[in-house]
Amino acid sequence: MSICVPKGFLMAGVHCRIKRSPRCEDLSLVMSETPAVAAGVYTQNVVRAAPVALDRSRTPSDRIRAVAICSGVANACTGERGMRDAEEMASLAAAVCGAEPDQALVLSTGVIGVHLPMEKIMQGISAAAVKLGRSETSLIAAARGMLTTDTVHKLAGRTVTIVDREIQITGMAKGAAMMGPNMATMLGLIMTDAALTPETARNALVAATEESFNCMSVDGHVSTNDTVLLLANGTAGGKPLKYDDLATFQSALNEVCVELAKAIAGDGEGATHLITIQIRGCSDRSSALLIAKTVANSPLVKTALHGADPNWGRIVSAAGYAGVPFDPGGISLRVNGFPLYEKGSPVEFDGAAVSASIRDNRDTSIELDFSEGTAGCRFWTADLTAEYVRLNADYHT
Amino acid sequence: MSICVPKGFLMAGVHCRIKRSPRCEDLSLVMSETPAVAAGVYTQNVVRAAPVALDRSRTPSDRIRAVAICSGVANACTGERGMRDAEEMASLAAAVCGAEPDQALVLSTGVIGVHLPMEKIMQGISAAAVKLGRSETSLIAAARGMLTTDTVHKLAGRTVTIVDREIQITGMAKGAAMMGPNMATMLGLIMTDAALTPETARNALVAATEESFNCMSVDGHVSTNDTVLLLANGTAGGKPLKYDDLATFQSALNEVCVELAKAIAGDGEGATHLITIQIRGCSDRSSALLIAKTVANSPLVKTALHGADPNWGRIVSAAGYAGVPFDPGGISLRVNGFPLYEKGSPVEFDGAAVSASIRDNRDTSIELDFSEGTAGCRFWTADLTAEYVRLNADYHT
Repeated sequence: MSICVPKGFLMAGVHCRIKRSPRCEDLSLVMSETPAVAAGVYTQNVVRAAPVALDRSRTPSDRIRAVAICSGVANACTGERGMRDAEEMASLAAAVCGAEPDQALVLSTGVIGVHLPMEKIMQGISAAAVKLGRSETSLIAAARGMLTTDTVHKLAGRTVTIVDREIQITGMAKGAAMMGPNMATMLGLIMTDAALTPETARNALVAATEESFNCMSVDGHVSTNDTVLLLANGTAGGKPLKYDDLATFQSALNEVCVELAKAIAGDGEGATHLITIQIRGCSDRSSALLIAKTVANSPLVKTALHGADPNWGRIVSAAGYAGVPFDPGGISLRVNGFPLYEKGSPVEFDGAAVSASIRDNRDTSIELDFSEGTAGCRFWTADLTAEYVRLNADYHT
Repeated sequence: MSICVPKGFLMAGVHCRIKRSPRCEDLSLVMSETPAVAAGVYTQNVVRAAPVALDRSRTPSDRIRAVAICSGVANACTGERGMRDAEEMASLAAAVCGAEPDQALVLSTGVIGVHLPMEKIMQGISAAAVKLGRSETSLIAAARGMLTTDTVHKLAGRTVTIVDREIQITGMAKGAAMMGPNMATMLGLIMTDAALTPETARNALVAATEESFNCMSVDGHVSTNDTVLLLANGTAGGKPLKYDDLATFQSALNEVCVELAKAIAGDGEGATHLITIQIRGCSDRSSALLIAKTVANSPLVKTALHGADPNWGRIVSAAGYAGVPFDPGGISLRVNGFPLYEKGSPVEFDGAAVSASIRDNRDTSIELDFSEGTAGCRFWTADLTAEYVRLNADYHT
């Protein structure tokens, strides 16, 4: 694992007083020294925040120079003012990076129903421009600048050698809860110095997202701001990757995205467990995903695991209402490797041992096997705790 | 509102030591003096408990004489033994009512993964047979015998006059959480002395369920045991209801079912609010239902209301990820009658007043209007509280 700033990128994270605590960065600026190919994947919510609308209109692209990120206010507005603010934030970021106004993208997360504090953001972008760097400190500050109720910053990186060229892929992300009053949204920014065409960048990002960020859920609430961006500036040199080289890149990109997705699930609001759900034996991947998502979003499954209870009934019955037909006599279930249910019937197991294995480990594994086919998927989620309720009910007090 | 035992029915609820507390009835017996028409609606879960399998095989019917209900153990077993136990429980109930073994139906709710304690159930059925009665006390005891973590028993009734005949419809139900280790399932039993054919009974029950129990959710987890039965013994006299008479009956039946559904939602585990979601202006009812269900099951909406926060962003964004396309510029939202969002934009509102109206009332109203058509629905749910998490995580301690 290698986390560093890819060649040709500079970044900074600063505090510009959107968040209250001066120790919390709330504005990040990422600059590419040369025009970068950029691709994005965006929320599937019908209601889209202004930053999503702006970035969607500018990607895929082959000339992005800057990304500005603010946390603390989501600009989750669909009206004219939200759009104007997003454009102005992008223009400012482009200006300090010496680029044209439309060569920048923006990400925002935080309180909804409040307009962006544009004066603070202007000051923040100017302050960040002065601090742009490529050190680990700069990278961490930039990763911190996108956080809301996350308890840790989330970075992942891979170095791969393709045709004698060292290529770096580094991603940052934030999660916590999907949407909230003082917190919001899954955001991700992946940077690479690999050379990609806009089309391959988009395809690679979609493929990586499909098996990482789209296989992850904290509370099932889809934000209006969800965005993952991939910037590829080609500074590593060479022609745009193709064929086997592209496959090598894709594989590393997938690893980076999976690592970030797991970090988000494991750091869900109030979470005490990172739950990995492995589905096998389905007739197709979309059926497997639907089952995984239904199990992951069942409050009864999430609370049982929080209570360290190997409650096979809740897990099996959640699978049963996913809307996917299957033979109930063909289900088998393991929790943390212990078989609890085999071919449609509960089996004898040492409840205390399974319970202890859940209680004593932050990682919990659920394996569900069906007898319908050979398709499957992996999915990550968090448990549901009283702390989650407190964070999301009592935030005004 | 008139709650009494319909003519020709007798019932009892007793404690037979399935539940620990001797003050908690855990076995109910309902008897019809004459063979009754019976219809059922059952869980849509792929995994079905034995009582569901048995009742499905025996309904619709025109000769049911008894229903036995036990709470404390769900018999959520799909294997041979579960089926044998369900059949034996039905046979015993039929025997004490002087009927053939296959003239009885069964309902079970409670712990899953445990077989029915058949000896206790035998004793319970015998004890209940001796106590069969038609008083309010008998009715309440029978309603109590189906409860699990419900905090109150749930009864609703209507008296209607059809062609000079007084017809009584009385229903009992239980809810709490959809599924659990010490608790499970939505169960309902509606009794009437009206004359119905098996076909009209089934159609009437399906129609009533569609706009009551199927428009209600506590945690979105669909149990393997969910069942609602309708028994119509015709003791009120006359020929099976048709046309306008049937419509009058249907309307009263709907009211009974809606009242029970609301009672279940409002008594969800840990609930402090009964949330009524009214959707209007959709292109069709199934779209409206999908939006209502998505809003109802969003943990962020449920926690916000628990915290008395009129968080329009969570509600509007939940509608946005229901999978129903709509014009975001056409959404309007009212909470407790206060307009928060009009035609796609937030409006100024007195946050303290709206918050107080949520905090000070157990009933909360969410009205969402769209500009897609004229279809709509009503849906009921509960808020999500730390107490729900405690009940569902810490039940072993």
